[in-house]
Amino acid sequence: MNLRIPGPTPLPPQVIAAVGQQMINHRGPEFEALLRETSEWLRVFYETDNDVYILTSSGTGGMEAAIVNTLSPGDKVLAVTIGVFGNRFAEIAEAYGANVTRLSSPLGQAADPAMVAEKLAAEGPFKAVLLTQNETSSGVTNDVEALAKVIHAASDPSPLILVDGISGMGAIRLATDAWGLDVVVSGSQKAWMAPPGLSMICFSQRAWNAYASAKMPRFYFDMGDARKYGEKYQTPATPNVAALYGLHEGLRMMMAEGRENVLARHQHIGEYCRQGMLNLGLTLFADPAHYSNTVTAANLPEGFKASKVLDELRTKYDIIGGASKAPGVEVIRIGHMGWVNDQEIDEVCAALGKILGR
Amino acid sequence: MNLRIPGPTPLPPQVIAAVGQQMINHRGPEFEALLRETSEWLRVFYETDNDVYILTSSGTGGMEAAIVNTLSPGDKVLAVTIGVFGNRFAEIAEAYGANVTRLSSPLGQAADPAMVAEKLAAEGPFKAVLLTQNETSSGVTNDVEALAKVIHAASDPSPLILVDGISGMGAIRLATDAWGLDVVVSGSQKAWMAPPGLSMICFSQRAWNAYASAKMPRFYFDMGDARKYGEKYQTPATPNVAALYGLHEGLRMMMAEGRENVLARHQHIGEYCRQGMLNLGLTLFADPAHYSNTVTAANLPEGFKASKVLDELRTKYDIIGGASKAPGVEVIRIGHMGWVNDQEIDEVCAALGKILGR
Repeated sequence: MNLRIPGPTPLPPQVIAAVGQQMINHRGPEFEALLRETSEWLRVFYETDNDVYILTSSGTGGMEAAIVNTLSPGDKVLAVTIGVFGNRFAEIAEAYGANVTRLSSPLGQAADPAMVAEKLAAEGPFKAVLLTQNETSSGVTNDVEALAKVIHAASDPSPLILVDGISGMGAIRLATDAWGLDVVVSGSQKAWMAPPGLSMICFSQRAWNAYASAKMPRFYFDMGDARKYGEKYQTPATPNVAALYGLHEGLRMMMAEGRENVLARHQHIGEYCRQGMLNLGLTLFADPAHYSNTVTAANLPEGFKASKVLDELRTKYDIIGGASKAPGVEVIRIGHMGWVNDQEIDEVCAALGKILGR
Repeated sequence: MNLRIPGPTPLPPQVIAAVGQQMINHRGPEFEALLRETSEWLRVFYETDNDVYILTSSGTGGMEAAIVNTLSPGDKVLAVTIGVFGNRFAEIAEAYGANVTRLSSPLGQAADPAMVAEKLAAEGPFKAVLLTQNETSSGVTNDVEALAKVIHAASDPSPLILVDGISGMGAIRLATDAWGLDVVVSGSQKAWMAPPGLSMICFSQRAWNAYASAKMPRFYFDMGDARKYGEKYQTPATPNVAALYGLHEGLRMMMAEGRENVLARHQHIGEYCRQGMLNLGLTLFADPAHYSNTVTAANLPEGFKASKVLDELRTKYDIIGGASKAPGVEVIRIGHMGWVNDQEIDEVCAALGKILGR
């Protein structure tokens, strides 16, 4: 199977072997060593000196943790959304009673720092701004660095910056500390080459200060408990041990390759996939200035339905791609994060060429 | 390693093999078949005609889902607690603003239906009652059937019955429908012989009716979303696929053995472990009328510290047991749920006998 949805991503054989191991005591020394090393390696890819905590949940749970541990009901929040996952971040904040203002870009576009600055000036000050690093639904990567700059300049104190880095982290640079990001969330089933079920999250000192007075209710996702248990390399509740075995092994491979090489590899495979689509005569869905290096969204020619093309890719070629709910256009999405090589992208393009008659 | 903590429990080789498999599309036909079969098998052990949903979280997340999907801030809740996990259930309800009354038994005792009836009559009506099926911290199993009976008789409408069945389900009978239980939560890493990271939860029609007006905030644990996606055998967010492979295989083995045989096997191993401890001259911590068949808590003789005994079990004999925070006594806990046989219990008793000089 050529699994080309944007997560869960395929597991390398080493990760599969790691995942398929016997259980251990989650309060014992083996687990402590496993969590300690995994957390340290995550900090390298997060580019942070702060601790990175590992929650037993999907990425969405990590997004909820970002919100409920830093905010109180009624807090003004600017949700900068460029698609499905940006909307989800806004919905979580609303579910917990935040006063959310949305700044939405059309699907396929990135967030414009000038428009964000304008919104912050016109309707601020905001307690927090929600950003998406990489919008899986459209194959767009935001310029988080530029967005963070205008947010920091917006007010004093500047809004907290909460980042959904789920489908970008580990593949596309995100310099947590240098860019002044307060909370960054990622998910094990993306570039980390591990099974789903873990969400990784870091908190800046500013985020911890916000935690001290944040009034949204929380229990399972309480980061204070995560910090307390984290000091002895444990978790408050029983953790997702099998996925952690996998995340540890995936990170071991990534550390051996080196962070900059990992990022460059994703830059390459992103370009390679886009070029393959262009070679078929397809156009790309995303704004060319903000193409994602983890997922490519391509427009299908007139007369082709995405659902039918994806069915044929699956049943005839054992290739699993993703659809997109872009209104009025038929779009397919090809994931290329984590464990993927040129040949697998070639296979996708060759099959797609046959289906589309090109 | 002889892993005798009360979860994570050891995985049979078939489950380890299942867990160590390549990822699949969580919106594709293979996943649908996996979730469909797993849910159907869970219903057999839940003894329910209602759907059982599978959440990507520890059991604690499932407990939170039970609370936030049925209650509103200010709702009167009776938390019947007999230990650490009963207290946790109460704390979750409090964190989300419920008006919680605790009825606590001393550690080692079960809840007394007569006292529960009295409390309900004196301070009711309550919107919900929180029960623990099996208290892991003390090795005590509640008589949930008898407790449910007095709760149903308490008021009209009777309180919702929310049950933490995490360390009992799949090993100790819990007849969800026959006993009129509204929400029952379990966890993959216990008697189900699967890795941690999944919480299984069923909702009665009464619970769904409560959901319609429940005002506690929720997003990740929103059961309405779980139901909506559950209709097509999917989950709202990316699920813990590797643990689900394991849960499916564990349940396949349990179905082949037959529910009544599984329950009888746990009755046997519980008795066997208790007898082993008694043969060493130890006394048991729990009320004899309410011994647990999934975990045994034994009192150590004078002069022995639980932490030291557990260290020696681990370092000299590769046996991993658990401590207990019972005040004023030194207690060790031996888990015997899921994949465990007489010989492994014999090893524990033999090692313990040597350490204690008996």
